[in-house]
Amino acid sequence: MAVKVGFIGTGGIGGAHLNALKTFEDVELVAMCDVVEDRAKSRANEFGGKPFTDFREMYDKVDMDAVYICTPPFAHGEQERIACEKGVHMFIEKPIAVTLEQSIIINDHVQRSGVITSVGYHWRYGGDAQAALSVLKKEKKILGALGYWMGGLPGTPWWRVRAESGGQHVEQTTHIFDLCRYMVGSDAELVQGVANSGSITDVPKYDVDDISMVNIKFKNGAVANIASSCAMQGWGRVHLEVFCRGLVVTIGGGGPLINRGGKAEEVKQVPGRDRDRVFIDAVKTKATSKILSPYADALETFKITMAASKSFLTGKAVDL
Amino acid sequence: MAVKVGFIGTGGIGGAHLNALKTFEDVELVAMCDVVEDRAKSRANEFGGKPFTDFREMYDKVDMDAVYICTPPFAHGEQERIACEKGVHMFIEKPIAVTLEQSIIINDHVQRSGVITSVGYHWRYGGDAQAALSVLKKEKKILGALGYWMGGLPGTPWWRVRAESGGQHVEQTTHIFDLCRYMVGSDAELVQGVANSGSITDVPKYDVDDISMVNIKFKNGAVANIASSCAMQGWGRVHLEVFCRGLVVTIGGGGPLINRGGKAEEVKQVPGRDRDRVFIDAVKTKATSKILSPYADALETFKITMAASKSFLTGKAVDL
Amino acid sequence: MAVKVGFIGTGGIGGAHLNALKTFEDVELVAMCDVVEDRAKSRANEFGGKPFTDFREMYDKVDMDAVYICTPPFAHGEQERIACEKGVHMFIEKPIAVTLEQSIIINDHVQRSGVITSVGYHWRYGGDAQAALSVLKKEKKILGALGYWMGGLPGTPWWRVRAESGGQHVEQTTHIFDLCRYMVGSDAELVQGVANSGSITDVPKYDVDDISMVNIKFKNGAVANIASSCAMQGWGRVHLEVFCRGLVVTIGGGGPLINRGGKAEEVKQVPGRDRDRVFIDAVKTKATSKILSPYADALETFKITMAASKSFLTGKAVDL
Amino acid sequence: MAVKVGFIGTGGIGGAHLNALKTFEDVELVAMCDVVEDRAKSRANEFGGKPFTDFREMYDKVDMDAVYICTPPFAHGEQERIACEKGVHMFIEKPIAVTLEQSIIINDHVQRSGVITSVGYHWRYGGDAQAALSVLKKEKKILGALGYWMGGLPGTPWWRVRAESGGQHVEQTTHIFDLCRYMVGSDAELVQGVANSGSITDVPKYDVDDISMVNIKFKNGAVANIASSCAMQGWGRVHLEVFCRGLVVTIGGGGPLINRGGKAEEVKQVPGRDRDRVFIDAVKTKATSKILSPYADALETFKITMAASKSFLTGKAVDL
Repeated sequence: MAVKVGFIGTGGIGGAHLNALKTFEDVELVAMCDVVEDRAKSRANEFGGKPFTDFREMYDKVDMDAVYICTPPFAHGEQERIACEKGVHMFIEKPIAVTLEQSIIINDHVQRSGVITSVGYHWRYGGDAQAALSVLKKEKKILGALGYWMGGLPGTPWWRVRAESGGQHVEQTTHIFDLCRYMVGSDAELVQGVANSGSITDVPKYDVDDISMVNIKFKNGAVANIASSCAMQGWGRVHLEVFCRGLVVTIGGGGPLINRGGKAEEVKQVPGRDRDRVFIDAVKTKATSKILSPYADALETFKITMAASKSFLTGKAVDL
Repeated sequence: MAVKVGFIGTGGIGGAHLNALKTFEDVELVAMCDVVEDRAKSRANEFGGKPFTDFREMYDKVDMDAVYICTPPFAHGEQERIACEKGVHMFIEKPIAVTLEQSIIINDHVQRSGVITSVGYHWRYGGDAQAALSVLKKEKKILGALGYWMGGLPGTPWWRVRAESGGQHVEQTTHIFDLCRYMVGSDAELVQGVANSGSITDVPKYDVDDISMVNIKFKNGAVANIASSCAMQGWGRVHLEVFCRGLVVTIGGGGPLINRGGKAEEVKQVPGRDRDRVFIDAVKTKATSKILSPYADALETFKITMAASKSFLTGKAVDL
Repeated sequence: MAVKVGFIGTGGIGGAHLNALKTFEDVELVAMCDVVEDRAKSRANEFGGKPFTDFREMYDKVDMDAVYICTPPFAHGEQERIACEKGVHMFIEKPIAVTLEQSIIINDHVQRSGVITSVGYHWRYGGDAQAALSVLKKEKKILGALGYWMGGLPGTPWWRVRAESGGQHVEQTTHIFDLCRYMVGSDAELVQGVANSGSITDVPKYDVDDISMVNIKFKNGAVANIASSCAMQGWGRVHLEVFCRGLVVTIGGGGPLINRGGKAEEVKQVPGRDRDRVFIDAVKTKATSKILSPYADALETFKITMAASKSFLTGKAVDL
Repeated sequence: MAVKVGFIGTGGIGGAHLNALKTFEDVELVAMCDVVEDRAKSRANEFGGKPFTDFREMYDKVDMDAVYICTPPFAHGEQERIACEKGVHMFIEKPIAVTLEQSIIINDHVQRSGVITSVGYHWRYGGDAQAALSVLKKEKKILGALGYWMGGLPGTPWWRVRAESGGQHVEQTTHIFDLCRYMVGSDAELVQGVANSGSITDVPKYDVDDISMVNIKFKNGAVANIASSCAMQGWGRVHLEVFCRGLVVTIGGGGPLINRGGKAEEVKQVPGRDRDRVFIDAVKTKATSKILSPYADALETFKITMAASKSFLTGKAVDL
């Protein structure tokens, strides 16, 4: 029997999930909800399901096993709460919120309801990340990591508005923060951050940071710095480097690259997993062990980026 | 008439200066002081001057215009104070001390005495640094910088003992911290740091950090992160990258590399200057404008590294 | 028609509320829930209502307009959530929780449900507090305050266990923290705290602070220090002093005392209000303006004490 | 043979010392230096010695064993340095400086020269302080202290200018900070402070804090809060309370008051010592054990007040 799936937020990253799901024979798309009515209708035409502009109405009228929540960061909250009440499993795109309070409340609903959740930290599922992890797990001690998301300014209008996206480190570099936690194998206990702005003066409503650097101290002692910039042009650096004694492991853009003692080391290739397939399987079987980023885990990544936002403003270190 | 120069600490970096000075026709080496008597004598044989093992005796017995102080970090203090009292100009190797109190006291002697000082931040004099600076000076706003000194463990015995060197960020990466201040054109107002150790367990007396990351907020708003590691093997990264909108300037290892809007930009080559020649000329002419790192300026770099040491321990941000 | 009131936690402070409520002709006590079965039964005998040991059962079986939640600090959460779901108004004793996450989640339920809430910060209702407030409201600027709860160790077993009460500043001095916010008329933006222990070694399970001091910076600029100690014997100091230019207002232990320019100033007496009467009236009329401490307001006081706990541990200032 | 004493700064507190010294038969006043020429001359007429307006000239022309430095806080530095060079012992009024750098440099001169120093923390010499100390020394554990200097605005013009006095906590409350260190028997490791101003708008050039509170964590675990205000009128509180289990010891304004277990406890009276007599005796005998506040010790008190100033500005805790 097919898994019935509803959709909230069908633009942007939502389209990527829809294209994946339509190839799954065991998935039936039963609802397409989008605040843009035309998009809801055209998505419904293309992928199936009834179109909605109001997710409350969608939840009321359509019976579903799972929902994909692919709305912008500021729009989270009520849609997750109702899913929890109705026992609808959720795939949620990152970042999970723009305020810490909101994410704590959603997490409470999730834990209380027992619905299956998977957050869209897809880097974790990549073959390069899995291969890197297998190398790092054999090491005695992970010293630390350097991560980067430095590039140009995305076109999405809400991206550049702090109240709507949280800024680059919350919305985009969150993948690197999350990958860093995953590779280091520990949660953060201390966050320190600095940020600067003022070079991008020609973009309306832009009020986020042009550049930022975030230091993290993990509970297992590992340390990291993660740099973000959206002021670059025609130049980019998006990857994570993990350091052990005599070992540099680079994840991002193919690979991973393993440099041990100055020489490239061959690493056994590991096939990546499809995040949508993993989620649908979990919904079908109720076995969740292959979901790499359930809500409570994603919350730990989100806490780091929220602590960084606070540190940018106050200059103080923030304890988690 | 030749400039009479004495030397305290003739090993290590001292040798490099001696080899440079011996080529200057207007310099006479008049004293070679080293706690290792044999080295003092052999240096005296090779380069001239009377050998000493006690710098107090040297100052008493030999008349000199200038002194090179190339002792290890922990040994600074009295030798600078006596030079100030006697009006002897000083070339001092970095780092200038291992405690903040010591450096404040020396700086007071320096300012009060009016002797000419030059600290061994030689990266500033390089053609690549000068060319990079000429590019950056034309930019409206410098956003920030990423700097690195990641490599292996130096052999010098005192280097690996925190009380003697201050650790890698104080002794070695100080060049990158200093270059960053120079390129950004501002002093630090806030320092945040994290560090980790425990992977280098086979080196006697080793008690410094294996890896560290330091965030800096400068008074002009620019931000930076500078990473250090001495746990690498056969792999290294030692340079500074400065970021403006659409511009990445890399200093270190030739160049500089200028990437503007995704394309390499030609930069007018600038010849480097010899730090020893600049110092000797300043001593001769009393015109100090070409000295790029007088003591009071080097103190600002040293304050950053001392604040970082404090932050490593407490987890707190440190205001300068 | 009488207001139907249930009770959860009938010992300690619960008894005080019961004795007040039994004098109200418009209140009918319909349920007495206590984990101690004998107490539940004897309270039911004395004050009316059905006895319960499980609040879930109570909510299921008894219809009520309002509930008094007088359980120890660590026991909050589920009982508030169910009241919100059922639309039962709540009088809740302080402190409202022992973790920040818990209080954020309860507050979300409260705001979403729209039930009337009143938290047991009874100092606010006193005639001395109201008279003091009327004096302070006429002042141009409130500079700051000094508050104290210094006395002996209460006998309640859970009080001395940090995980159960949060410690003295969270459980007891919270009245002074709350009164300080009320008098200063602003919320905290910064909290700094220090604490010490080790003099009370003869009390089993005791693991809270013997003494603590908490600095607060309020958003309107006012500053305060609030000291707690439970290591005193036969000596106590429990009051709040508020300072303006040339004015000292003392609340606690009768009064208030108004010292202006060195002389006692007469203040117009203001009758206090009964917190239970105010709550019952609000439940009857749905007019909540006389409730001085709704849940969302009490949360702001709780945030200060939680920030203090964090600062005691880390030594850092905490931004709210 | 009489001890030859010079004087720099003969107004204010200087007068108090002069009146004490003139009663000592073994003291000869040999120089009176004051930037106000008339005062220098009239002091010289009254107490003896040659008048000067420039302390450099005084040191050059008059031979002396000891000097009293009673200038305002901002004027310290050169006069101490020259005394050190000439081997002249120093009695120095508090506060010892207005910047930390200045005090570190002076301390270096003092330690290097070996001159005897005594700083004017006269509360330490009082009979009440000595009696309190004898009580506290018998206690197993000192929990903490609360200190106050709350009163009106002193008339001295430089007092109300931050750059000249450092503000109330640096200039005046420094006595309470110092007494707290002395009673607690430990140095500070952490300082947190908040301050507010804006109620004193009618005093020209006034730019200091109207009120402040400073938390201190000492190395032995004891905690303290010390409150200052100069915005009071006709009301004051100037004392220190020290807390142990079941014990409150109050120093200031007679006493000390000892409250043990709720009852006043008699304490053996201890005669106070004259700070000037102690200093002169130390100069004569070179036995310094009775000097209770040599420069290096006073520096530890000064560090606390400087850390407080930093914390007022940044909101951060400061590690010493």
